[in-house]
Amino acid sequence: MIQVGVIGYGYWGPNIVRNLHALNSMQVTMVCDMNPAALARAQRAYPSLRAVSDPTEILRSPEIDAVAIVTPVWTHYELAKLALENGKHVFVEKPFTSTSAQAEELIELAARKKLTIMVDHTFLFTGAVRKIRELTESGILGDLYYYDSLRVNLGLFQHDVSVIWDLAPHDLSIMDHLIKGEPEAIVATGEKHLNGVEDVAFMTIYFPRNVIAHINVNWLSPVKIRTTLIGGQKKMVVWNDLVADEKVRVYDKGVQITSGDGIRDLLVSYRTGDMWAPQIEQLEALRVELDYFADCLMNSKAPFNDGESGLRVVRMLEAAEASIQKRGELVRL
Amino acid sequence: MIQVGVIGYGYWGPNIVRNLHALNSMQVTMVCDMNPAALARAQRAYPSLRAVSDPTEILRSPEIDAVAIVTPVWTHYELAKLALENGKHVFVEKPFTSTSAQAEELIELAARKKLTIMVDHTFLFTGAVRKIRELTESGILGDLYYYDSLRVNLGLFQHDVSVIWDLAPHDLSIMDHLIKGEPEAIVATGEKHLNGVEDVAFMTIYFPRNVIAHINVNWLSPVKIRTTLIGGQKKMVVWNDLVADEKVRVYDKGVQITSGDGIRDLLVSYRTGDMWAPQIEQLEALRVELDYFADCLMNSKAPFNDGESGLRVVRMLEAAEASIQKRGELVRL
Amino acid sequence: MIQVGVIGYGYWGPNIVRNLHALNSMQVTMVCDMNPAALARAQRAYPSLRAVSDPTEILRSPEIDAVAIVTPVWTHYELAKLALENGKHVFVEKPFTSTSAQAEELIELAARKKLTIMVDHTFLFTGAVRKIRELTESGILGDLYYYDSLRVNLGLFQHDVSVIWDLAPHDLSIMDHLIKGEPEAIVATGEKHLNGVEDVAFMTIYFPRNVIAHINVNWLSPVKIRTTLIGGQKKMVVWNDLVADEKVRVYDKGVQITSGDGIRDLLVSYRTGDMWAPQIEQLEALRVELDYFADCLMNSKAPFNDGESGLRVVRMLEAAEASIQKRGELVRL
Amino acid sequence: MIQVGVIGYGYWGPNIVRNLHALNSMQVTMVCDMNPAALARAQRAYPSLRAVSDPTEILRSPEIDAVAIVTPVWTHYELAKLALENGKHVFVEKPFTSTSAQAEELIELAARKKLTIMVDHTFLFTGAVRKIRELTESGILGDLYYYDSLRVNLGLFQHDVSVIWDLAPHDLSIMDHLIKGEPEAIVATGEKHLNGVEDVAFMTIYFPRNVIAHINVNWLSPVKIRTTLIGGQKKMVVWNDLVADEKVRVYDKGVQITSGDGIRDLLVSYRTGDMWAPQIEQLEALRVELDYFADCLMNSKAPFNDGESGLRVVRMLEAAEASIQKRGELVRL
Repeated sequence: MIQVGVIGYGYWGPNIVRNLHALNSMQVTMVCDMNPAALARAQRAYPSLRAVSDPTEILRSPEIDAVAIVTPVWTHYELAKLALENGKHVFVEKPFTSTSAQAEELIELAARKKLTIMVDHTFLFTGAVRKIRELTESGILGDLYYYDSLRVNLGLFQHDVSVIWDLAPHDLSIMDHLIKGEPEAIVATGEKHLNGVEDVAFMTIYFPRNVIAHINVNWLSPVKIRTTLIGGQKKMVVWNDLVADEKVRVYDKGVQITSGDGIRDLLVSYRTGDMWAPQIEQLEALRVELDYFADCLMNSKAPFNDGESGLRVVRMLEAAEASIQKRGELVRL
Repeated sequence: MIQVGVIGYGYWGPNIVRNLHALNSMQVTMVCDMNPAALARAQRAYPSLRAVSDPTEILRSPEIDAVAIVTPVWTHYELAKLALENGKHVFVEKPFTSTSAQAEELIELAARKKLTIMVDHTFLFTGAVRKIRELTESGILGDLYYYDSLRVNLGLFQHDVSVIWDLAPHDLSIMDHLIKGEPEAIVATGEKHLNGVEDVAFMTIYFPRNVIAHINVNWLSPVKIRTTLIGGQKKMVVWNDLVADEKVRVYDKGVQITSGDGIRDLLVSYRTGDMWAPQIEQLEALRVELDYFADCLMNSKAPFNDGESGLRVVRMLEAAEASIQKRGELVRL
Repeated sequence: MIQVGVIGYGYWGPNIVRNLHALNSMQVTMVCDMNPAALARAQRAYPSLRAVSDPTEILRSPEIDAVAIVTPVWTHYELAKLALENGKHVFVEKPFTSTSAQAEELIELAARKKLTIMVDHTFLFTGAVRKIRELTESGILGDLYYYDSLRVNLGLFQHDVSVIWDLAPHDLSIMDHLIKGEPEAIVATGEKHLNGVEDVAFMTIYFPRNVIAHINVNWLSPVKIRTTLIGGQKKMVVWNDLVADEKVRVYDKGVQITSGDGIRDLLVSYRTGDMWAPQIEQLEALRVELDYFADCLMNSKAPFNDGESGLRVVRMLEAAEASIQKRGELVRL
Repeated sequence: MIQVGVIGYGYWGPNIVRNLHALNSMQVTMVCDMNPAALARAQRAYPSLRAVSDPTEILRSPEIDAVAIVTPVWTHYELAKLALENGKHVFVEKPFTSTSAQAEELIELAARKKLTIMVDHTFLFTGAVRKIRELTESGILGDLYYYDSLRVNLGLFQHDVSVIWDLAPHDLSIMDHLIKGEPEAIVATGEKHLNGVEDVAFMTIYFPRNVIAHINVNWLSPVKIRTTLIGGQKKMVVWNDLVADEKVRVYDKGVQITSGDGIRDLLVSYRTGDMWAPQIEQLEALRVELDYFADCLMNSKAPFNDGESGLRVVRMLEAAEASIQKRGELVRL
């Protein structure tokens, strides 16, 4: 059984521990947090866990096979590096690292040590994204036209990162998973109203073959919205992640261009048909993901949400950051 | 009574005629359309109207006091110019003109001839926008943070103009009406998938004092959405134009920055309270607007949706057009 | 071409005239209303119509083939009787008559004179009901379990009839159209709060084979709701008539009873699958219905919404009325 | 500190234990379940608990002050009786008992022994119901006209009780809490489709002064709905328990009757105004309720959700049961 140590028991850490706890293939034996209250909570909930306040106790423990790093992004690089150097596989929160250089170094280190990095892009394991991926892969949507995500709510403000680093990694990893072809360039705009980081931001990502993606993230919205429109030539998808049922709706609607009679006539014809909401798998995404992590470790498989995938997301975040500073200047990837 | 001639009896023209018909202060006496079928429809509906196929018959008729120009945008300039030259007041569809130079010329001409131009930014006369304007004017929202509009649906494709020229004038005129201060610069991105004009586009407009506006327009969405978020320091508004009731919702929510204990600590504090949906006036916006047009003519008042207002919208459209061609380059206004 | 006279030009009459006007098979030549203002409106809208204030002018006119009776229910019997006696076909508003005895007499009279009666159960001609009927007829829903309709809003109060006579005919005619087998008995409850007639009422209708229908009508609801649940063994339908798109949703959900291991064990097993919203025909229901009326007259077909169908609805209304007076006593049909 | 034993650790029991665990005023020391798997779960989650399979160990333990009975309804009477006889306070799941005779006996016994019974009508402690109660108590709604609840979903089928005993206790206890005056009579209808108990049922409850309540419960609905309309003379409420925010909406709408000119004229006048969604307290209802239970025990207060309140609900369930067997016969309370 794979022995796992979890570093960070704040907001997300308890979910990692709880889900690892339920797996037969992995066992959490150590947990670390600098906050004594968090550590006490962990100890109370799981009396058999060894709770430590110094992460190196986990990172150097000979009994630990894999480390879950569930700490603020600026600590990822150092913790992951030490873990890899000590021969541990790494499961790390998104975004992977603070810079692409750090990500590249960790990827190289893991390759050298034949260790696995998995970046916790949890959304890729939800029933909704799995279903949408199934739809895009099967070709049922036809050529992709656009991906447009609205992800807004009131807070939670982060002190050190902008709304882009906080909320956009979800969309960037989903886009990376769904859209064929590497993104070419990014334009980002936004504004700071309160504490010196952008709290409202808009990103446009250009892909090959006229595919365009757009992400709207906002910490100052009075209502919570999590809606993504995905337009294809043959069918279109609306994904509303906040409804209990029918999160993914597939519209048999399309627009096509046909030649008209005249030389310069291009006729646009519409097609509208039924709407269909496929049943979505209800499993907890994090459970599915950690199960997949165990499977990758035991069977030496490279996960699709590996370091490279994490790096691609960090590169887009860096490009967005650079663009927003210059008020929307196009940044090539 | 003001005698009005209406040029254009396609999609919107019949609404103009119907509403003019119901006013006591104005009388439609002539209607023009190049399409004989449209003309026959007008004649059948209003047997007393004089129906002509040549607009100059209206533009030169000594009996006509004001002309409503309800034709494609590329014809506005010439028709309006002739109308003004012949001493007629002008009520013209949005967008005002194809270029800002044309708009400037018409404004100058109208001023010289002491005639009135009203640009048909109908949305400004809806109960919803009137209520939102009341809220922003009263200061109840506090300092404005952002204006974010999502205006998407399937088609109607225009052959000659992009989705920006088709859908964004609504938002641009509303923004112009609500936000104090002149916009400083625009960043626009988008993509063409079908007939050579952008069918998906995103605009960011920078205003003074960190106010930011964003407009998402799309002809390729499977669902129709008309939702605008307006964030203020004290209160926030969600305007959903597609619901029958409670179109405007005011959220007593806010975020404030307070100094923390430490030197560099800035604490963000949230406030959440009740939501309130004020009753919205149910009058037909176009009726209210035409009534206001009559009032302006009879009492020699300058309408707030005058040529200048139309020009400001055209300038933003031009800037967006220029920006989108350069993939998001910042265009100063 | 069938010559039609329309009696009643209040709320619904103008829709009848407008739709008849658009048909090639019928021609409205006369219209009657006791209210001079209504008559003037009709005359202004359709200058070629002959407008009269005395219905007998229409009922006795040798040029008239069919009469549309769009007046309050208490006048239907006398007007329809006179129409039939004068050899005119009858298109009459719902509910058909004030009493089942009146309906029976009119049916008998029409049969004797070989004339057609069509009762204006407009809802049966909507795209939504046509689609639901298609689903029930095809057997795709499996055995029907229940029909449950919620039809509430604020007003319009009627002075002479209760909310049951005002709103329930819609549901009763739809039920009559969809559910096989004659209803067996009715239980109705309700309450009067304002002007001496029930403004809130609830009806349960028992059908053979455990099919049960329920109708909730209310003039005192702050929100307008038009939602019907239809449960079948294999699939279930939710019809929300107030949404623009996806009015009819078909759920691939079901419950089945299976024998368990033990002698008395009955296991209930659930099945849940996709949801599907078939495209709904967008034609105006009244247009389709009047077209069908013309077709029935020209081809001597008996309409499915004939006098018998109207009579069945009136019988249910009478039974509900009788039940509600005795606070829910079961009234057999 | 009050020592509590919990009997029943199936679906709801763990929530009771978890919430008791978090209170300072109470301590769970024993838990009982006949199912060894459930017991093992309890032991794993709370290693300090004493887990027993025989409820009498709890009921007779001298260390236990109060017992929470979280078992099927048919066991409540015997367990509660034994608890009271052994001098323990009782917190018991809804519905209180299977018959009103049982409830009366327990109430009498508790009074004699000076012990407290609290019936777990959890909904009364939700922020939504507390807010609605505040609205009705303050008189802001004006005279109450009706209470109309729709509580439908797919399953969970109970084998021993009908949908009325399963779902209606929620509404009956809320009604009992909100509506002044004792209910006078009940009419219930419904149908059995699967396992010999009603799976679809409708109840009308008559109150004094023309107040009417209606409850629609259904285990065979494809969608889950939890919506209650409450109509008052001055204001009306829509409570949708399934939305995250704005569960309670207050409509400033009303209908009034005024005398018209004529002798028999009664005019109905409408008033429509703003809608208002008061902020709702987000505390977990069960936590608030158990805190209140501790408060009642420590300060010898009689809870408002006492045995009498539980008895009133059981009497309505019995009446509904009797009425439904006779297809809607009025049963006086």
